[in-house]
Amino acid sequence: MKLKSDLSNLEECFPESFTPAQVAKAKTIFYKTLALEGHRFYGGKMQTIPKAGVFGFNWFNVWYTPGVSKISTTIRDDNERSFELSNRGNLVAVVSDSTRVLGDGDVTPPGGLGVMEGKAFLMKYLGGIDAVALCIDSRNQKGENDPEIIIDLVKRIQPSFGAVNLEDISQPNCYRVLDVLREECDIPVWHDDQQGTACVTLAGLLNALKIVGKKLSEVKIVYFGAGAANTTCLRLNVAAGADPEKSIMFDSRGALHKRRKDVEADPRFYRKWEICMKTNPEGVKTMEEAMKGADVLISVSTPGPGVIKPEWIKLMAPKSIVFVCANPVPEIYPYEAKEAGAYIVGTGRGDFPNQINNSLGFPGILKGALLVRARKVTDAMAIAAAKSLADFAEKRGINPDNIIATMEEPGVFPNEAADVAQQAVKDGVSRVQMTREEAYRKAKEDIDYSRNLTELLIKESFIKTIPPELLEKVLQKTIEEVSRS
Amino acid sequence: MKLKSDLSNLEECFPESFTPAQVAKAKTIFYKTLALEGHRFYGGKMQTIPKAGVFGFNWFNVWYTPGVSKISTTIRDDNERSFELSNRGNLVAVVSDSTRVLGDGDVTPPGGLGVMEGKAFLMKYLGGIDAVALCIDSRNQKGENDPEIIIDLVKRIQPSFGAVNLEDISQPNCYRVLDVLREECDIPVWHDDQQGTACVTLAGLLNALKIVGKKLSEVKIVYFGAGAANTTCLRLNVAAGADPEKSIMFDSRGALHKRRKDVEADPRFYRKWEICMKTNPEGVKTMEEAMKGADVLISVSTPGPGVIKPEWIKLMAPKSIVFVCANPVPEIYPYEAKEAGAYIVGTGRGDFPNQINNSLGFPGILKGALLVRARKVTDAMAIAAAKSLADFAEKRGINPDNIIATMEEPGVFPNEAADVAQQAVKDGVSRVQMTREEAYRKAKEDIDYSRNLTELLIKESFIKTIPPELLEKVLQKTIEEVSRS
Repeated sequence: MKLKSDLSNLEECFPESFTPAQVAKAKTIFYKTLALEGHRFYGGKMQTIPKAGVFGFNWFNVWYTPGVSKISTTIRDDNERSFELSNRGNLVAVVSDSTRVLGDGDVTPPGGLGVMEGKAFLMKYLGGIDAVALCIDSRNQKGENDPEIIIDLVKRIQPSFGAVNLEDISQPNCYRVLDVLREECDIPVWHDDQQGTACVTLAGLLNALKIVGKKLSEVKIVYFGAGAANTTCLRLNVAAGADPEKSIMFDSRGALHKRRKDVEADPRFYRKWEICMKTNPEGVKTMEEAMKGADVLISVSTPGPGVIKPEWIKLMAPKSIVFVCANPVPEIYPYEAKEAGAYIVGTGRGDFPNQINNSLGFPGILKGALLVRARKVTDAMAIAAAKSLADFAEKRGINPDNIIATMEEPGVFPNEAADVAQQAVKDGVSRVQMTREEAYRKAKEDIDYSRNLTELLIKESFIKTIPPELLEKVLQKTIEEVSRS
Repeated sequence: MKLKSDLSNLEECFPESFTPAQVAKAKTIFYKTLALEGHRFYGGKMQTIPKAGVFGFNWFNVWYTPGVSKISTTIRDDNERSFELSNRGNLVAVVSDSTRVLGDGDVTPPGGLGVMEGKAFLMKYLGGIDAVALCIDSRNQKGENDPEIIIDLVKRIQPSFGAVNLEDISQPNCYRVLDVLREECDIPVWHDDQQGTACVTLAGLLNALKIVGKKLSEVKIVYFGAGAANTTCLRLNVAAGADPEKSIMFDSRGALHKRRKDVEADPRFYRKWEICMKTNPEGVKTMEEAMKGADVLISVSTPGPGVIKPEWIKLMAPKSIVFVCANPVPEIYPYEAKEAGAYIVGTGRGDFPNQINNSLGFPGILKGALLVRARKVTDAMAIAAAKSLADFAEKRGINPDNIIATMEEPGVFPNEAADVAQQAVKDGVSRVQMTREEAYRKAKEDIDYSRNLTELLIKESFIKTIPPELLEKVLQKTIEEVSRS
């Protein structure tokens, strides 16, 4: 079978003899190999271009000297005008020190560029937001990654941006970086690994609970992994109504509870200690115990497969909900989780059903925040985004293999942006007022612009098509590699 | 008369009763007013868009997780691959602390955004380079603009960029910032106010001297202003063959010479002290003395008019060359300088003949440096660019009102890029080898891409046309304002 250029028939192109595990593996290898070829083919993923017209060279007297002097002095006299007179009002810095990039850990500062450019790509394509990848070196003179360095740098570049998206900063640094910057910056600082994952997970959870007919306040939730993402998941779930006493979280040393002296001893892990204090009152210690009768498992830990055991899932309550969100490979493959009895399974991947992926959150959330020139993203704004996402999917129908909208569904992001913008106004963190309708219209206009522009560029060959031979080569290489192993 | 959308008939739209001074003033006011309206109309000047294709949503599995993981690990294992696997290889950070923006001085950190975005605009349109405006807050705890802060920040962000263009950093900070970063960064760091101005001024000077039949090594040159730009002009001119003993430079306190104890006393002005030591051996003190018989005046000081006096120009040798490059208004208007006897007059403005403007330099120079992944821009590369510019203009014919190519002339930037790339290879600072022909072809391809893309966006209304009513409104407002004053 010939692989289509939209890759929609990828699975069908693998040999029929492939087991589900081999298909899953082949998909990962295929996407990785194509990524390498594709990134080289284009020389990266994002570019900068004018948004203002050049109707002859005299216009450079307007856009540059002498005319531009008026922009300098106008902004000097009122800094807030920088949001309307430059691209700042629609521009996000995607900042990472590349110390915990997807599942690959510390990949050295430039190593994060592929992911951060990808993030910028998604911002534009899904949210109509301009964005710049900033992979920075956060090492101090001792060679340690220093949170104070990230904090200082972000504060110094904030005059150029409308918002900052922190990304893939290892813990514990990420807690302090986010908490300080949220407090001390005058533009939204969003740590997508924390708030983004938590927001979209909550959206998925809300709808999964609707399907199985359980209430957030009553379910028992096990959290596997106590990294930045999962600890924020727990915090946001509790803020949205989950019962902390029915929550148990595991880190690499076991369950969190009041007697975890090791956590108490390290003040950098203050977020984790908060969780020790308020969850797992019975002091449950093992996954076997915790999973007995659990309604929900939320795992954001290390890439699988083989990280979450089928035996654990077998212990869960009927109609169990399992989110296994490690990247690039989930902690257990969905087919395996379902075989073990999970009723609803979500992952972080787009090539499985129920993608619980940050990509559903940040484009809409940051767009909403930018539209009203918000000074920060409150937890209420993140919960508003989660509810917006859940409601959007519910309206068009949900089922166990379709609990949440995908990035492809028209309307999801403008709706989310509008709901977030409204919440920002309500929370008093916006610089400008805007009705929901106005925010929706502007968000939709900008998102349509991005998509139509990308289409135009492809149609007019300003973005070349990937040669079919290249796709075929990657496919064959993948099949050989999987067959061999 | 109706103002054309390309603004080409602007002067003809002013009342015939306007004096030359009024016309000059009106042009400045018109461009400034239109800048304000135009920047607001578009909401800034630059945007980010994909350069890689999306042929259906499955492609996000390639550009983002899980595929992109391969990019992270590949770059982690060999940092140099970041130049080909991300947009880094064609991306420039335009970094300023906005402390000396054009002629407007310190405009507060976000105040520089209009100029830096304009720079990014020119980079793309003229040089086929992607660029990002980074206006940063360089103040330390005492509230002083601290060069060490700029140095540290640029070093920390360099993993994300192929080159850094420093801009509008006040002196003396700019000297140390550039000198340290050139030494300690592994990508080119270019201070456009220093090297850029010097390079293009040298290009203009070389051709002006050809026209008047004088030799660089024999002419007497007066430099008015001892800022970052002019001190680098002097240095580069000397490197290219000018005689330092026939050079006299003035700062705000008078002529530079060996007995200027005030300069000697302040080590931050080490560049200026070098000039005190090697120029003006007779210790000339006043402009009246210095200008007597001078062949060339290079003024890069404070915005005029009225800064350079006609009486000074009257003292110069026959066929004198006068470059008055302050922005946004030259130190003396060209018509006034010519009335006083100047034979060739250049300014920094595009609306007068002989624009000695950085815009002729950096797009080609940085493009050339990026093409061969240079580690720095050597003085030899800057001189190669100046000669490339001069030769390009000479080939198509030069005269006193046309000594240097304009940005509009096709071929000027690809040629410059190719010459600079060659010099980088020759100087041993390039990471990759490339023939002149290859460099020329790639530069031309990228520049054509930018221009054609901008045209396409205008044609397809992705960049809206400025409404004619807006142009008319700005014109009328300008005429009223000038008539009133």
